Amino acid sequence: MKGHFAAFFEPSAVAVVGASATPGKPGHEVIRNIVANGYEGSLYLVNPKGGEILGIPVQPSIASLPPGIDLAVIILPAGDTPKALEECGKMGIRHAVLSAGGFAEVDEAGARVQQEIEKIVTKYCMRVLGPNTSGHTSTPHRFTSTFFPLGKIRRGKVSYIAQTGNFATHTMKHILTAEHFGVARVVGLGNKIDIDETDALQYLGEDPETHGIIMYLESIKRPRAFLKVARNVTRSKPVIALKSGSTEAGKHAAVAHTAAMAAEDRLVDGLFRQAGVVRIWEYSHLVSAGKALSMAPIPKGSRISFLAPSGAMLVSLADHCVRLGLQIPELDPKTVRRLQDISPPFIRMRNPVDIWAAASVKGVEFGYREGMEAVLGDPNVDAVVTILMLTEDTGIPSYDFLVDLARRYPGKPVLVSFSGDRRYNEECKAYLEPRGVATFPEIEQPFEALSILAKCRQFMSRAI
Amino acid sequence: MKGHFAAFFEPSAVAVVGASATPGKPGHEVIRNIVANGYEGSLYLVNPKGGEILGIPVQPSIASLPPGIDLAVIILPAGDTPKALEECGKMGIRHAVLSAGGFAEVDEAGARVQQEIEKIVTKYCMRVLGPNTSGHTSTPHRFTSTFFPLGKIRRGKVSYIAQTGNFATHTMKHILTAEHFGVARVVGLGNKIDIDETDALQYLGEDPETHGIIMYLESIKRPRAFLKVARNVTRSKPVIALKSGSTEAGKHAAVAHTAAMAAEDRLVDGLFRQAGVVRIWEYSHLVSAGKALSMAPIPKGSRISFLAPSGAMLVSLADHCVRLGLQIPELDPKTVRRLQDISPPFIRMRNPVDIWAAASVKGVEFGYREGMEAVLGDPNVDAVVTILMLTEDTGIPSYDFLVDLARRYPGKPVLVSFSGDRRYNEECKAYLEPRGVATFPEIEQPFEALSILAKCRQFMSRAI
Repeated sequence: MKGHFAAFFEPSAVAVVGASATPGKPGHEVIRNIVANGYEGSLYLVNPKGGEILGIPVQPSIASLPPGIDLAVIILPAGDTPKALEECGKMGIRHAVLSAGGFAEVDEAGARVQQEIEKIVTKYCMRVLGPNTSGHTSTPHRFTSTFFPLGKIRRGKVSYIAQTGNFATHTMKHILTAEHFGVARVVGLGNKIDIDETDALQYLGEDPETHGIIMYLESIKRPRAFLKVARNVTRSKPVIALKSGSTEAGKHAAVAHTAAMAAEDRLVDGLFRQAGVVRIWEYSHLVSAGKALSMAPIPKGSRISFLAPSGAMLVSLADHCVRLGLQIPELDPKTVRRLQDISPPFIRMRNPVDIWAAASVKGVEFGYREGMEAVLGDPNVDAVVTILMLTEDTGIPSYDFLVDLARRYPGKPVLVSFSGDRRYNEECKAYLEPRGVATFPEIEQPFEALSILAKCRQFMSRAI
Repeated sequence: MKGHFAAFFEPSAVAVVGASATPGKPGHEVIRNIVANGYEGSLYLVNPKGGEILGIPVQPSIASLPPGIDLAVIILPAGDTPKALEECGKMGIRHAVLSAGGFAEVDEAGARVQQEIEKIVTKYCMRVLGPNTSGHTSTPHRFTSTFFPLGKIRRGKVSYIAQTGNFATHTMKHILTAEHFGVARVVGLGNKIDIDETDALQYLGEDPETHGIIMYLESIKRPRAFLKVARNVTRSKPVIALKSGSTEAGKHAAVAHTAAMAAEDRLVDGLFRQAGVVRIWEYSHLVSAGKALSMAPIPKGSRISFLAPSGAMLVSLADHCVRLGLQIPELDPKTVRRLQDISPPFIRMRNPVDIWAAASVKGVEFGYREGMEAVLGDPNVDAVVTILMLTEDTGIPSYDFLVDLARRYPGKPVLVSFSGDRRYNEECKAYLEPRGVATFPEIEQPFEALSILAKCRQFMSRAI
């Protein structure tokens, strides 16, 4: 399988079939994306009109392509796709991305075209992604088949498998504009007539560029094979999944009939647990888990310490930790003494840490730095969350001490959220995240991210 | 009680005891806050040094104050507070805010000072807020006793009761800098030797400026009285509460001993349910519920419709609705026809609404406006959430149609979240919220806010 996937993720020669000179059309935007990402292999364009697009000569037909094409990106209306695929097969092109929609997801006529494609795939022993996929991305190879105008896609160490066009389009746009982490590979599965989540997971499990895998799935095509592959991958890499709805056709029914969904959900729960896949429940956690995996290490366990500038936050966040399955251990007596040393005596320092008085009296930077250093050095603590107090009233710290602490304790996640003036929250995020420290706007979010990471650890360290 | 509270929330003459000329000191910042909020009553300052502060003459002693002072704001160290309170009592001042910390929350010595204060309060028949309170605010009367530098506090229709200094300080700062809604009254309870959550709730229940009440509580001082008052208030006004931890002393134990907390929690749950108080669980929901109450009506029921630009979002958000107790009803056949009219036929329009194709083909503004209008007009729908697709690729709509729709359906909440380019998310929020339409950065948040509003309705419409 790896050999086949290399054609998708490390292609040396690619043909875009259905290349368009018209900005805004998918057949044009895909070329702009490939160019914007700095693809270094050979790029061929096919359109009967010929000519040039973005300075690249256009071949009039698939038959006029040179030999040795690894991958065809076919961006044609559904009805024209079988013929193009057949021509690719005849030319010895063994791998294709089928970007058009209008197949089984739409109507009976589309389903018949899809069956036609399946026959061609079998006939020529091809491997195809889609149809109805928004494409795939491979930042280490500077390549993408996405036709949504994303421009340069940031490189990172997390890979995504998404059974939805939305991820590779609007959600990627959101990640690129609102966040600072990047991706290694993104696979839009589409209607998965051939390549499915199990194939993609197997490839990413062996991919040295991929350090963690996040999936959005609406169905699991081959549950037994998935279980076998996932059990293996999750021993060495975190795998996180949002599984929503049930079958394509049953989505609406699933919504209407909660009981049915709950029953199917229990099966999915069991499958994921056996497979070592950490289940998440919210679409936006696809992004926050990606950020946490990208910037923080997987903690050794679920024992956390946190600092907040308010008793109310300490108590309500401690409640939240309990609900999330995180533990708040007693600190080592040495740590407690160290904390008490930086605080006025009227605050009893313990875990979680009330840093308000220390930060107010001794300065925000000093209080937080010393407090975080104390708990990061504690052998009972696997990870640290800090809720920074950022207002002009108490003084704005230099944010660099947080980068420094995260580097000096590389085995322990350091996650940051904020209290106070929003302007400085934004400024702090913009400073910390490009330097590898994850921040979250709502104070509960770093705890949710940590609980996901801690569950990854539980699965990775399970008995074989 | 109303009479007493008028002295706190509509004082005609206020004395700040412990006024300071030094910027940054609480005794100075409180004066700046009072001035910044445009307080129109008489303001007297007391400090043995005399002179002037911010152009206001300073009286050398409490005894030199004129008669008729409604409220004393005493900002002195704990040890100096009893003497000042006694002098206020002698002068006939019957209401005081005790801002200092250092009482029972700190140590035994502090507890003894607090007892001394309690005796003085009884002796002179006073009503006091605190000690250890960060103050209170009354925007309709342009008055605040908060000493945290907040400047002008936005007026709104939601009131807060908070048993934490953090709310009136950092959280208010966050609301003022990150949000667009305002507050009517804010009561920081502090150590509540006299005025407690039940007193405050009773006042706010009768307060015409208060349309909804949100509480952060760490303890309930008089559960029976609370139940009686809350049962009454919640018939006409939404009351929402975050109750965290257990007792002051038991907070840490509660964290360590989950079982104990769970037992206490069941009692709180039962009390709130009987009282008609909607319980929330996350600190950040104090803000998001405040926004929802400020900008949206209480829906008639929990039947919602939502529009999203992605099947994946539709399915995972529908799952989320089920978990939150929101219903996603079938739409009226007329509504379905109207939706189908704006969409290419390959999307089957129903609830929830897949608006991607309509918005892509007919324009984002047209697609969303027509789609929202259709579901807002449906008699089966009590509230609408829309996940706006905002990227340059599909075109940025004029945001005004959302304001227009919200105005034309005043009985149905219209809540907004975003997909796509973050820059436009921020721009849209900045346009909509000052015009009364609430937005939320994460796509799950409007549903969480709606589920809170729907629970408020359930309690408000319960049989008596």
